[in-house]
Amino acid sequence: MVDIVVMKAVTTDNQAHADAVRRILDKNRVVGLNLVSSPGAGKTTLLERTIKDNPDLKIAVIEGDIFTARDAARIEAAGAPSIQLNTEGACHLTASMIEQVLPRLNLAELDFVVIENIGNLICPAGFPLGEHKRVTLLSTPEGSDKVQKYPLAFNTADVILITKTDIADAVSFDMTVVEKDLKGINPKVEPWRVSVVTGEGLDRWYRWLNGLKRK
Amino acid sequence: MVDIVVMKAVTTDNQAHADAVRRILDKNRVVGLNLVSSPGAGKTTLLERTIKDNPDLKIAVIEGDIFTARDAARIEAAGAPSIQLNTEGACHLTASMIEQVLPRLNLAELDFVVIENIGNLICPAGFPLGEHKRVTLLSTPEGSDKVQKYPLAFNTADVILITKTDIADAVSFDMTVVEKDLKGINPKVEPWRVSVVTGEGLDRWYRWLNGLKRK
Repeated sequence: MVDIVVMKAVTTDNQAHADAVRRILDKNRVVGLNLVSSPGAGKTTLLERTIKDNPDLKIAVIEGDIFTARDAARIEAAGAPSIQLNTEGACHLTASMIEQVLPRLNLAELDFVVIENIGNLICPAGFPLGEHKRVTLLSTPEGSDKVQKYPLAFNTADVILITKTDIADAVSFDMTVVEKDLKGINPKVEPWRVSVVTGEGLDRWYRWLNGLKRK
Repeated sequence: MVDIVVMKAVTTDNQAHADAVRRILDKNRVVGLNLVSSPGAGKTTLLERTIKDNPDLKIAVIEGDIFTARDAARIEAAGAPSIQLNTEGACHLTASMIEQVLPRLNLAELDFVVIENIGNLICPAGFPLGEHKRVTLLSTPEGSDKVQKYPLAFNTADVILITKTDIADAVSFDMTVVEKDLKGINPKVEPWRVSVVTGEGLDRWYRWLNGLKRK
């Protein structure tokens, strides 16, 4: 049974709510991640696989969607607790929304709270949610030119995952363009190739998550 | 040489500006199209192919992007005039922006003004631009569940193009889910499958465009 919470965006100071979220996470030694991407870049699929492959990582997922509870249902089926936020039109999550739903999770027993943002490569970039790390996904069929076209999603990322690399050749994806564009706007981050179909790059992603654990 | 115009979103009455755009188009017997999709769904690629395959259709393109002039350069290379709008952060085009740039086009000699909106499946849906027809694109790698998750982009569309059908099998795209979901929110519109790689469905798209011509 998925817990659906309908919320409107609050226009008050987002940073104050983000700071509050961070304090709650830190107090409980929980790592917060904020996943940002276009619709259909593979956020939920990556989380499903990550949860199944890593029973030792205690992960809960806050699913942000405009409508539907499909993604939270998928996460719960994969074996992790999940809360579905529905914004009913709003194009990004706000820290206030996260602050309000955090008490519904059993933080004492969690390693990670992963926030899957609304599928949108633009608006979420400007709203920190109190996360410790921001992960931006770019799927190969979206094209190699997206770093320059949507720089805010990429220059605020701590990790950049290039997803669906199994079909990279079929969609003529050119990784060298992404690497070159990233050097211009976020030179400290090197993109990681991943595929949940072939398993490419998942070991690196899992090692990174394990390195972040705080308890 | 691409004409780049930087514009901020105006929060005054969008509908009034949309009405003004429509009047200008009608006066010149020009058809306005508004193309909406996620980033990388294939809007520019479809327009490139459409322009090259249809020398008898006089098309101009207003390219909406947050940053860069790449898409307008691609359109001009394909043989059509183009104006690049850069919103520098704003997540959708407004009718006011279109009204301001229309005089730069030679409307007397055009059949179509195609507005390629910002790559965003959420925010553009709420801002009519004075277009006669709205075309929403969904690319197969985005997944079959997007109609229910982003209904506003689909229930305001006059035509829905399912793009990149050449890789539909590789990404396990299920057209029956899209058709079923559309029956619930926009039953008058049946999605058309297209691929610029195999050419699937382009004849139907071109026939539709030719049927809209007003001079």
